[in-house]
Amino acid sequence: MFSEAVPTARLLIACPDARGIVAAVARFIAEHGGNLLDADQHTDREHGEFFMRAEFDLTGCDLDAENFSRAWSPLAQRHSMTWRIRFNARPMRTAILVGTLPHCLHDLLWRHQAGELPIEIPAIISNHDTLRAVAEHAGIRFHHLPMGNEGKAAQETAIRTVLDDEHIDLVILARYMQVLSTEFLRGWENRIINIHHSFLPAFAGGDPYRQAFERGVKVIGATSHYVTEVLDDGPIIAQDVAHVSHRSSVDDLKRMGRDLERTVLARAVRAHVHDRVLVSKNKTVVFD
Amino acid sequence: MFSEAVPTARLLIACPDARGIVAAVARFIAEHGGNLLDADQHTDREHGEFFMRAEFDLTGCDLDAENFSRAWSPLAQRHSMTWRIRFNARPMRTAILVGTLPHCLHDLLWRHQAGELPIEIPAIISNHDTLRAVAEHAGIRFHHLPMGNEGKAAQETAIRTVLDDEHIDLVILARYMQVLSTEFLRGWENRIINIHHSFLPAFAGGDPYRQAFERGVKVIGATSHYVTEVLDDGPIIAQDVAHVSHRSSVDDLKRMGRDLERTVLARAVRAHVHDRVLVSKNKTVVFD
Amino acid sequence: MFSEAVPTARLLIACPDARGIVAAVARFIAEHGGNLLDADQHTDREHGEFFMRAEFDLTGCDLDAENFSRAWSPLAQRHSMTWRIRFNARPMRTAILVGTLPHCLHDLLWRHQAGELPIEIPAIISNHDTLRAVAEHAGIRFHHLPMGNEGKAAQETAIRTVLDDEHIDLVILARYMQVLSTEFLRGWENRIINIHHSFLPAFAGGDPYRQAFERGVKVIGATSHYVTEVLDDGPIIAQDVAHVSHRSSVDDLKRMGRDLERTVLARAVRAHVHDRVLVSKNKTVVFD
Amino acid sequence: MFSEAVPTARLLIACPDARGIVAAVARFIAEHGGNLLDADQHTDREHGEFFMRAEFDLTGCDLDAENFSRAWSPLAQRHSMTWRIRFNARPMRTAILVGTLPHCLHDLLWRHQAGELPIEIPAIISNHDTLRAVAEHAGIRFHHLPMGNEGKAAQETAIRTVLDDEHIDLVILARYMQVLSTEFLRGWENRIINIHHSFLPAFAGGDPYRQAFERGVKVIGATSHYVTEVLDDGPIIAQDVAHVSHRSSVDDLKRMGRDLERTVLARAVRAHVHDRVLVSKNKTVVFD
Repeated sequence: MFSEAVPTARLLIACPDARGIVAAVARFIAEHGGNLLDADQHTDREHGEFFMRAEFDLTGCDLDAENFSRAWSPLAQRHSMTWRIRFNARPMRTAILVGTLPHCLHDLLWRHQAGELPIEIPAIISNHDTLRAVAEHAGIRFHHLPMGNEGKAAQETAIRTVLDDEHIDLVILARYMQVLSTEFLRGWENRIINIHHSFLPAFAGGDPYRQAFERGVKVIGATSHYVTEVLDDGPIIAQDVAHVSHRSSVDDLKRMGRDLERTVLARAVRAHVHDRVLVSKNKTVVFD
Repeated sequence: MFSEAVPTARLLIACPDARGIVAAVARFIAEHGGNLLDADQHTDREHGEFFMRAEFDLTGCDLDAENFSRAWSPLAQRHSMTWRIRFNARPMRTAILVGTLPHCLHDLLWRHQAGELPIEIPAIISNHDTLRAVAEHAGIRFHHLPMGNEGKAAQETAIRTVLDDEHIDLVILARYMQVLSTEFLRGWENRIINIHHSFLPAFAGGDPYRQAFERGVKVIGATSHYVTEVLDDGPIIAQDVAHVSHRSSVDDLKRMGRDLERTVLARAVRAHVHDRVLVSKNKTVVFD
Repeated sequence: MFSEAVPTARLLIACPDARGIVAAVARFIAEHGGNLLDADQHTDREHGEFFMRAEFDLTGCDLDAENFSRAWSPLAQRHSMTWRIRFNARPMRTAILVGTLPHCLHDLLWRHQAGELPIEIPAIISNHDTLRAVAEHAGIRFHHLPMGNEGKAAQETAIRTVLDDEHIDLVILARYMQVLSTEFLRGWENRIINIHHSFLPAFAGGDPYRQAFERGVKVIGATSHYVTEVLDDGPIIAQDVAHVSHRSSVDDLKRMGRDLERTVLARAVRAHVHDRVLVSKNKTVVFD
Repeated sequence: MFSEAVPTARLLIACPDARGIVAAVARFIAEHGGNLLDADQHTDREHGEFFMRAEFDLTGCDLDAENFSRAWSPLAQRHSMTWRIRFNARPMRTAILVGTLPHCLHDLLWRHQAGELPIEIPAIISNHDTLRAVAEHAGIRFHHLPMGNEGKAAQETAIRTVLDDEHIDLVILARYMQVLSTEFLRGWENRIINIHHSFLPAFAGGDPYRQAFERGVKVIGATSHYVTEVLDDGPIIAQDVAHVSHRSSVDDLKRMGRDLERTVLARAVRAHVHDRVLVSKNKTVVFD
């Protein structure tokens, strides 16, 4: 998709649609000595919104994390932009939250080792102790933080402390089966990625493979989305499906679903850590 | 899938699971001089139900539509079978109900001409006059039966009269946008096939492409199912999906959806007219 | 994908990769009063090649088909660009060449009627008379141009005359089973689209479904490509596949293949007529 | 797909097509007190061949591994059957051969742990020492058997010794990059499963992702097949594909291919160890 060999920056923009934005952004980058490697944009004509992702080579460029904001502000203000930029020297610091099911965790660790995901994983957190060995074999610190007598708020505070201590950028819920509270989510908008084991919005809530079996669907799915206050309702980043038949038992659906979940979650995480996802009106723009 | 050149019969069975049913059925057919061409069965272990489809060559067989029931009854009663058989001399007589959208109708007519569907189509019925020319170009009588001042009951009676007069076996709702009443459906269980333009149970009801667009799904679908009293809730026969992205407008979804609808409806009709579908507990067994 | 309501131009560029091209193109369009609606680009890092598609709104723009070339030339020359532009007032004039199989022709006509393809179809040409009625029912002139005693060259001259007389921009081979000569192809590079009934490069040449059956593949495909001198070897525009099993006879493969062929050919034609395809080194860049 | 809780036997049959085979087999099983759980059959009408898979419950059945052959022989001879049976008390003893790429090995080990594959893995063998730690972490003995000065024959003898010592039933080539000699393959027909990283027969031989990239295909694939003397030509058990675009570099194809390879290999192994695969004329019948 792009070379990771050269130092680059990735700029993501959302603003009201108007004439000349692409030209203005391209000129800004060129004037500062950046070379635009990849520019993708999307216009939501229905709502008059404009979205853009620009990745540019920093070789010979006078912009950096320190001075960018000042140089960029006039243009951003003129177009009422919401924007963010990442100078990609540093892989995203990622915490993985898990329950007792290992397949998504295994898969993320394997992809990380294989160099597929430009992330660091300083912490794996769980309300169960089941997957400690998996984490420790990978050399990653495992935090067993169950819901104790002090309740959910205390547990979430403990989790929050780990995230803060480890300077976490991204949280992945790899079949973590607890609902996170509104308080917890505050400040983490579009930075917590969940995998739901159905084709949302079908079969939200518990035991979706059982629900799918009972309904007799001929296709099952998995959905990766950002977590919001409303359960299983956040902006969808990636989905995929598999064909099933009357021969598929609930256990077969779960087995086939594991393959879907692993692939779909990895795809969503990959898009996120490459700064390819913008959110607007509870939907995502995923530049590919 | 099977040769249409030799005269065959297709027997469909549902009964409580028990030892030796396959052997008993196979022996029955062999003793009557039939040659079992294809036997497929399925056991729903959860509910202890057994399903079987047997297709046998009638050359040299002493069974026919007249005498089958008497010969078969003892075995059927012993196992408390629900069953049906079709001696396939005659293609199913099929009525197509349409609204104003032509794509599913076009597609069924084209597949019929191409020899893909062993059916006869003596009638096309609509509450609009829009598709009259399509029907008539195909040499099929078009019945314009709108909901008039006399209301829905009168309209359904008129439709029912056409179905009776034409000795219809199967009704296909090829984007027919009216809900059929409970009275109408009586006697037509598992003989009316609808195409719904979403991946059910997601986006049941009206305007599913708009719903899918608003939710920001990354996959859209189509579902073909038998019609029951509960809207969009009948046993699912076939489903398929297509990947979409943020670039897809509602009109794009509709365009891509048309391709899905045509294929999925044809697949369901094909399974039905080859006697490959059994229904139990609002789910289908589709032998392939 | 884009609004057809406003007058737009689509510019396609290929050139050696260099700094600042996107910025330069964006600035050029802005300076002439155009509003960049959609800009997509791709860099082939292996060969150091840059590709770009820019679509811009012509409202208030001082560029038109007459003056564009002069204004654009300095920039094009500076970057050694290969380029083309289309001011999209006029749908592409398209000729469809067919043999005896109707499904792809039917499908293209149907999509044209449904407004899916912004083309005009002034001519349908065949070496057989089989599909005359299909053409004429659609109100399109049918040219029966068989290979007579005077041989292939004479036949191709006759075809060429129709293409010239009708000012054809694009030729679609909708299961036309004749090989076109090198002479015929001259001047039609990347303007003749074929549908091959296999997943190329597997099963090039004749009777690919039979070949697929004999090899026992579990997936069949269809490939749409630009026609070049080497049979079944031109740049691939679109491909798709379907799962099959040991139960699928050659006739089943053909039936399932018809659905693939229709969809894949339509997708390729759609990309072409929306000016989304660039060719380089026998491969395509298909902007979506 | 089937219950592993009850003791069952699986019988696989191939023979010339004839009347009454299903009935005869069903009766044989019933007469010996077996309960037919699942019977699937397929007739290759083109070659007049009949294939059947029967799985039956052994509770109350008088057949076992010792006496089956004698009881069965008369029927088998009457129909000139090729057949095999497996009394499934024992999981298949499986050796995995690997090179340096870990993804398929990882995946098989993970599925084995998750209970997806009813096999034992007493040996992992490689001509490289790279994956020793992966094997040993899983508690499986790793045999580093490189091609030394004594050449390929000596190496293959060493591999053969491990297979014999460990009573191996099935060999999986999980991205093992050496060609096995004709001598080695003798006696292992349809018991060595390979994963090839392309959609065969396209891109047989070396570096298929590079080949796919150069050809500019829009779909890549993976193929799992039994190994025969002719490289990449054995009977295909499973295939799957993924869509790619001009944006996909060779490295992207490899990354996406890894996911395909893992899934397709697992699907083939699963079909094999559940005794669902029959081979005839270099093609497979895979009962599902």
